[in-house]
Amino acid sequence: MAATKQVYIGIIGAGGVGKCFLSQLEQLAQRRPDPKLVLCYISTSSKSLYSSNYAPIDVPTALSQLQTSSVGAPPALPKVAEYLASVPAGAKAVLIDNTSSQDVAESYPLFLSRGVSIVTPNKKAFSGSYKLWQDIFSAASSGGAKVYHESSCGAGLPVISTLKDLVDTGDEVTRIEGVFSGTMSFLFNSFAPLEGAGGNWSAEVAKAKDLGYTEPDPRDDLNGLDVARKLTILARLAGLPVESPTSFPVQSLIPKELESVASGDEFLQKLPGFDSQMEEVKTSAEKEGKVVRFVGSIDVASKQVKVGLEKFDRSHPIAALKGSDNIISFYTKRYGSNPLIIQGAGAGGEVTAMGVTSDLIKVLSQI
Amino acid sequence: MAATKQVYIGIIGAGGVGKCFLSQLEQLAQRRPDPKLVLCYISTSSKSLYSSNYAPIDVPTALSQLQTSSVGAPPALPKVAEYLASVPAGAKAVLIDNTSSQDVAESYPLFLSRGVSIVTPNKKAFSGSYKLWQDIFSAASSGGAKVYHESSCGAGLPVISTLKDLVDTGDEVTRIEGVFSGTMSFLFNSFAPLEGAGGNWSAEVAKAKDLGYTEPDPRDDLNGLDVARKLTILARLAGLPVESPTSFPVQSLIPKELESVASGDEFLQKLPGFDSQMEEVKTSAEKEGKVVRFVGSIDVASKQVKVGLEKFDRSHPIAALKGSDNIISFYTKRYGSNPLIIQGAGAGGEVTAMGVTSDLIKVLSQI
Repeated sequence: MAATKQVYIGIIGAGGVGKCFLSQLEQLAQRRPDPKLVLCYISTSSKSLYSSNYAPIDVPTALSQLQTSSVGAPPALPKVAEYLASVPAGAKAVLIDNTSSQDVAESYPLFLSRGVSIVTPNKKAFSGSYKLWQDIFSAASSGGAKVYHESSCGAGLPVISTLKDLVDTGDEVTRIEGVFSGTMSFLFNSFAPLEGAGGNWSAEVAKAKDLGYTEPDPRDDLNGLDVARKLTILARLAGLPVESPTSFPVQSLIPKELESVASGDEFLQKLPGFDSQMEEVKTSAEKEGKVVRFVGSIDVASKQVKVGLEKFDRSHPIAALKGSDNIISFYTKRYGSNPLIIQGAGAGGEVTAMGVTSDLIKVLSQI
Repeated sequence: MAATKQVYIGIIGAGGVGKCFLSQLEQLAQRRPDPKLVLCYISTSSKSLYSSNYAPIDVPTALSQLQTSSVGAPPALPKVAEYLASVPAGAKAVLIDNTSSQDVAESYPLFLSRGVSIVTPNKKAFSGSYKLWQDIFSAASSGGAKVYHESSCGAGLPVISTLKDLVDTGDEVTRIEGVFSGTMSFLFNSFAPLEGAGGNWSAEVAKAKDLGYTEPDPRDDLNGLDVARKLTILARLAGLPVESPTSFPVQSLIPKELESVASGDEFLQKLPGFDSQMEEVKTSAEKEGKVVRFVGSIDVASKQVKVGLEKFDRSHPIAALKGSDNIISFYTKRYGSNPLIIQGAGAGGEVTAMGVTSDLIKVLSQI
């Protein structure tokens, strides 16, 4: 038997997803001794932990070690790339980016070209400029490294892997449609439910914020950009060279008058004044026997991508969604008129980290 | 750059799935030149095509070559294993089993122990005796070979890969439930639809047979064994050492009196005499405001697996299924009260072959 292979793991980001991932990493290392996983780098935006001899960092105490005052600021990203690319001979390195940082995303080509594989839930790299997308995949190819990002759309749901399988096996994806935001799902399932009347729009937004379902400023959900980023990623995987998440129509649910108010709190305070607009949308759908939902869709043949409000028959799977679930329907040549559907929680630390961990397992089996 | 790696492909079975797979293999070889795929063996139950020097068999004409009279009978399976295990130095071999043969299934440990990877939609190996299951995975491990069988449950739907990801990342699967048979789905969606009255049971069975949705003898669907096999596979992946598909309760929809009639045709002729039994089941569900469906479920904590008729609320995703779609719900600790759901066509040559092709792509990335 050959000696057990070593794979060195570097982690950037130790927030909600990062914490869950660390705990999954600990379990993974226990369950699967081969390859041996060595955590050799971990950083937040202000602190970092690593040593020049790649000594293993104890995973269960990594977070508390990071919090001690003796720990220094993280080095510049090119230095981190250099560090991970120089792991002991015969070993491989994987960078786990658990941030949503644009800077880290832009450094992926550097890591990949140096042979460091990347696993991440960070949407920025794959939904930024089309040039960055191309740079990432050509750097991976030239560096012999892997890049996986299942959790960049629908968290741990098998959305990206399924789309890749469809495309890689030669199916023709004709249309992708769905509810891609847990926040929007929750808001519309409460505001315009299948059963009962639903609440006022502004009250539902305030409730979602209280429950932690929105960003600190709810406008960061209501502007539709998060959904637009996910659609950009899926459209590119389906073969459309979408330039950026602002290069197709995205409907914002922020009233024009409230776009520039100073804070999220002020926004919430003034939102009730615009409830009648959303009420009208709801009523108009009801008159047709339908419900309104905030969806994204990609029509591959006509190359149309769009994000916004649409009306659905009450029997449509999108209308019947519950809680903050996502639903993604793939219409393809092979699957015919009934799409392949994936549904379930599309946000949350544990399920997002699960997508990261399962991607890591795939990378480990290939490097 | 290293020379392009070669992977030799042997195929057993050239029926409905086999034909679709050959066409997908041809496209795959064109799209992905590395590794170079060499078809070196193909057989049906009565004929086989291969040469001692592993000369490539032309994929587009493989079927017509097989049909020529000069082609001989297939060698015994141990000889096929020996042949594939002895491909030229440096190359790897993969056996694609596109049959539903028990014999071929029982030979997997032999192939795997000799380093030949296996990709198959054949349920028999994974739902036979628990000993065969264990032999297969220990042979794969000792032979350094891979075994993938996505299409053994739900055809190309990402059912097995999703369950593996959940388990491998440390989630706790508590319950799996769903409609696992396209035939049963079609029958109950027509017999007890959400809208309208539905037809007589025997008429729907006859219609399904005419449309090609059932086995030549519909009793092979109505006995529930096909669903029981799929449940056996999923239960084992979820960690339950299920002994066999007959070791848990499986409800057969064949009236006792018709179990031993000579032919499928005679069965269909006599089935109308038993319509009142199924009508009663339908009416009893309707009285509770529900619909009846033929489902399988696995309760992991209580280790209970069962297959049979159950009543569902009209708003339940299982009630709303259409056509011959499958639906599989995974309840897990991480996903909480709303399950992760996979839905879509779970049968048909093209989508079954798609599962085989995507498994092959995974094997190619790992060997």
